[in-house]
Amino acid sequence: MSAAAVWSVDPRTGKRREQVATEATAAGVDRAVRAAHATRESLADRTVRAAFLRTAADLLDASADEVVAAADAETALGVPRLTGELARTSAQLRSFAAVVEDGAYLDVRIDLPDPTAVPPRPDLRRWKIPLGVVAVYAASNFPLAFSVPGGDTASALAAGCPVVVKAHPDHPATSELAAALLRRAAVKAGLPEDVVVLVHGFDAGVELVRHPLVAAVGFTGSVRGGRALFDAAVARPVPIPFHGELGSLNPVVVTPGAVAERAEETGAGLAGSMTLGAGQFCTKPGFVLAPAGPDGDRFLAALTEGVAQAAPAVLLDHRMRTAFVDGVTERAALDGVGAPVVPGAAAEHTVTPGVLTVDAARLAAGEHALLLEECFGPVTVVARYTDEAEIAAVLGRLPGNLTATLHCADEDPAAPGLLAALTPLAGRVLVGGWPTGVAVAAAQHHGGPYPATTSTATSVGATAIERWLRPVAYQSTPLHLLPPELRDAPEA
Amino acid sequence: MSAAAVWSVDPRTGKRREQVATEATAAGVDRAVRAAHATRESLADRTVRAAFLRTAADLLDASADEVVAAADAETALGVPRLTGELARTSAQLRSFAAVVEDGAYLDVRIDLPDPTAVPPRPDLRRWKIPLGVVAVYAASNFPLAFSVPGGDTASALAAGCPVVVKAHPDHPATSELAAALLRRAAVKAGLPEDVVVLVHGFDAGVELVRHPLVAAVGFTGSVRGGRALFDAAVARPVPIPFHGELGSLNPVVVTPGAVAERAEETGAGLAGSMTLGAGQFCTKPGFVLAPAGPDGDRFLAALTEGVAQAAPAVLLDHRMRTAFVDGVTERAALDGVGAPVVPGAAAEHTVTPGVLTVDAARLAAGEHALLLEECFGPVTVVARYTDEAEIAAVLGRLPGNLTATLHCADEDPAAPGLLAALTPLAGRVLVGGWPTGVAVAAAQHHGGPYPATTSTATSVGATAIERWLRPVAYQSTPLHLLPPELRDAPEA
Repeated sequence: MSAAAVWSVDPRTGKRREQVATEATAAGVDRAVRAAHATRESLADRTVRAAFLRTAADLLDASADEVVAAADAETALGVPRLTGELARTSAQLRSFAAVVEDGAYLDVRIDLPDPTAVPPRPDLRRWKIPLGVVAVYAASNFPLAFSVPGGDTASALAAGCPVVVKAHPDHPATSELAAALLRRAAVKAGLPEDVVVLVHGFDAGVELVRHPLVAAVGFTGSVRGGRALFDAAVARPVPIPFHGELGSLNPVVVTPGAVAERAEETGAGLAGSMTLGAGQFCTKPGFVLAPAGPDGDRFLAALTEGVAQAAPAVLLDHRMRTAFVDGVTERAALDGVGAPVVPGAAAEHTVTPGVLTVDAARLAAGEHALLLEECFGPVTVVARYTDEAEIAAVLGRLPGNLTATLHCADEDPAAPGLLAALTPLAGRVLVGGWPTGVAVAAAQHHGGPYPATTSTATSVGATAIERWLRPVAYQSTPLHLLPPELRDAPEA
Repeated sequence: MSAAAVWSVDPRTGKRREQVATEATAAGVDRAVRAAHATRESLADRTVRAAFLRTAADLLDASADEVVAAADAETALGVPRLTGELARTSAQLRSFAAVVEDGAYLDVRIDLPDPTAVPPRPDLRRWKIPLGVVAVYAASNFPLAFSVPGGDTASALAAGCPVVVKAHPDHPATSELAAALLRRAAVKAGLPEDVVVLVHGFDAGVELVRHPLVAAVGFTGSVRGGRALFDAAVARPVPIPFHGELGSLNPVVVTPGAVAERAEETGAGLAGSMTLGAGQFCTKPGFVLAPAGPDGDRFLAALTEGVAQAAPAVLLDHRMRTAFVDGVTERAALDGVGAPVVPGAAAEHTVTPGVLTVDAARLAAGEHALLLEECFGPVTVVARYTDEAEIAAVLGRLPGNLTATLHCADEDPAAPGLLAALTPLAGRVLVGGWPTGVAVAAAQHHGGPYPATTSTATSVGATAIERWLRPVAYQSTPLHLLPPELRDAPEA
C-alpha cells in the first residue's frame, strides 16, 4: 500500500491546493526519530546553538513573503496577522538564542564540601542537561509561532534537544517551508540538518509519542487530541514528560465599578479581542461575568454592537467550522440562553461571530455546564450576575485556564477579593486589557491548571526552556572532568 | 464492618507490638483531605511557615529518644543510624525554613512594559504559588527522613501546601509520633493542626491519589507500588503531578586504573556501602562493572571479605525478607552466576549479605536481564568486563538510576568517556566515594531517569520545593493589588 498523500487545502474554498508530502509510516517515524537522535552530540555547544537559532530567525525573515503567502493560503488568517506572527516567531528564535548564551537557565548550583554538616556534605555541583529528542505537535491556529519554527521547537533546540515536529494538517505546505528553513539554518551553523525533522500524519503522531527514543513532548491543540497523546505518553513503559496546552475558557470578570466607569470601552474592547483571528486564539476570552442592571446593559450593548459589525470569518478548516456551528447551536438552544448576536454559519465557507447570554444564577446552580467549556471560534458567553456570591459560585465551577481577566474600577473594593479568586484558576492574571496577545518575555507564563496545560510549565517566554532539561549533580568530581560551567566555585 | 486495625510490628520477632490506629475508610480520607485543604490560607505567610518548620525541628529534636526508640522497635534499623536520621530530618526542616525565608525559590521575574517589542510587552510580573494539598507516601526504609516529617512533607509545607501523609505500614507508631509533633508545632506557630494529617491503610492510599482536592503527590517506594499510584494520578479527570522515587540499581564502574591503584580500598569501601542499613538504601550500589584479571580479583576479594564479615541483618519487614531471599536465590541460580558470598536466609528473622558475580559479556549480549533490576537488600552484582566495549554495551542496557559512580585512577584516560556515558543514566554522578549518604544541600539532586523517579525533580535538597509550586504571571496589575514580592521592579 502506498503512503497516504498530504494535501494543502484552501479553507476559503475547501479545495485542495497541492500535494505537499506523504504521511509517515511507522518505519518513517522510526527513521525520523533515529535521525534526530543521532544529532544530539552536535547540539552540545551553546555558542553553536545560539548561532543556529539566530540564523534560523534570519532565514525566516528573509523568506517572509513566501512563508506568509503559503500560510495565508492554507489558514485564511490573513497577511497582516501572519506577517506579525512571523516577526514574533523570528523574535522568539532570537530570544532563545539570548537565553542559551546567558546560561542562567542551567541553574548552576555549587556546594563546597562541609564535613560538619548533618550528614556531611561533599563537593556537589549541579546543572541541567537536555532530555533528548523532543516531539513537537504543531498547533492549527498559529502556523508559525506555535508550529514548526515556534516556541516549542525554539526552546527545545535552545535546550540542546533535537526536535521531531508532527505537522498540523491545516498547514502542511507552510510546515515544509519552515522545516526546510530550519534545516538550512542548521547546516549554515555547522550542524546536521536532522536536528529538526518533520513528519506528517495522524498515525505518525501516535507512533511518535510511543517511540522509545522520544524523551519529551510539546503539544498545542484540543483537549480531546491532547489528552489522548498525554495518556499514551504516561502509559509508556518509560513515561515521558508531556507539556500540552489543551484548552481554555479564559474567564473575564467585569465589576459594577468597571461598567459604571467605562461600559462602552470595555464592551468594545471585548468585541475586538474575542473576534481577533476569527476567535481562534487559545487565549480568546470565551466567558464573561458581567453585572445585571443598566450599566451592565450598556456594556453588553457595546459588545454586541462591536461583534455585529465584525465581518463573517473563514475558520482554519471545515471540520472546525462544523464544530463551531454545532457548538454554538447547541449552546444557544439551552433554556434561558439568549443570543443578542447569533453566531453560526454564514456563507458556504464562513461563520458569523456572536454573543450568547445567560443568567449567572443558572450556572451557579450547576445548570448548563456546556457553557463553561471552550467553544473554539468567534463566540463568547456573557453571564449576568446580581451579587458577588454568584460570581464566587460560578468561578468555583470553572476548569483551569491559561488566563483570567479582571476589569474593575480604579479603587474598586471588590478587586482584591476577585484577584484572589481568579489566581487559582489561571496561569496569567490580567487587570484590565485583554488576554489575546501573549508577550514573549522572561516573566511570561503561558500555561495554567488542567486542561489549560498538562503540566505546570509555560510554552511561551524564557522559562519555556525548562521543560526540556533535567538536573544532574556531580559529586566529588575533579574539576578537569567537569563542564566549564561547573568549574568556578562561588566566593567563600 | 469496623475499620481494620493498624499494628506496629517488631521485625526482629515478627510479633505485633501494639495497635496504633485504624485504617482510614474512603470517608476518612475525604475528611483528612478536606481538613488539610481548609488550612491552605493559613499557610500563606512565609514568616509563619519558616517559624513552623523550625518549631517542628525543635520538637523533633526534643523528642529524639522517644521517636528513635519507636522507630528502632518497628524497623530494626538500630539506634545509632536512627539517631543520625533524626538529626538529618530536623536539619532538613530547618533548611527548608531558610529556603522559605530566602524567597529565591519564588523565581520572581519582572518585565517592565516595552511597547516597541514584537509583540508589544505589557507589565508582567511572575512568581510561584502553591499547588494545594500534597499527598505524601512515606518510605519503608527511612522512617523519618523520607516519611512523615521528611523531605516531601518539609518541602511541601515550605511551599505553602498542606500535607496528607499516607503512613508506611512498617512504622505506624513512629508515624503517629511524628505527625503529633508536626501538628503540635503548627499550633505553636499559630497554624491549624490540620496542615498535616496522617492516614493509614493501603486502600486509603489509593483513595488519596484519586481525591479531587489532592493537587500533587510525593512518593518513595517500589516500582510496582509507585507505578500503580502514578498510573492512578495521571488517569484522573484532572491529572496531577506525581513525583515518585521508585527504584534504582546505582551502577558503579571501576576502571583498571582504579584497581591497579587501590583494589583493596575500593573493595572494602563498596562492602561498607552496600551493607549499610542492611542494604536498604535507595542509593545502595547494586551493580558493579569491574575488570577481569588479577587487579579486579583483588578488588573482588576485598569486597567479598568485607561482606563475609558483615553480620546477618534484620530487614524492615518479613515481606521484604521473603522478597530478598527469593530475589537472590533466583539470581544466583542463573547460568554462569557465581556467589563468592552467598546471600540469603540466615536465622528465622535475618538475612545474610552477599555478592554475586557474572561475566559482563553475558549481560552485554542481553542475557540475565534480571541482574539489571534492583534487588532490595544487602546484595550487589559484580560484572567482570574484559574491554571498554563490554562496559558500553552493558551501560546501554541499564534502566534509569538515582546515582552512577565512577572509580578511576588519578589521571585515568578512560574517565572522560565513562563520565559521559554515566551521566545520561543518573541524576547524581560520583567520581570516587559511594552513593549511600545523600547530602541535604542546594546543589543536591536526588532523582533520575525512570524508574529512579517519575519526574525530572529532586526529593532532596533546596530545589525539592519546586515540585509543589506553579508559576503565575500578573499582567498590568496595579502594584497595590500585587503581593509585596512582586512590587519592586528591577533597576532600569
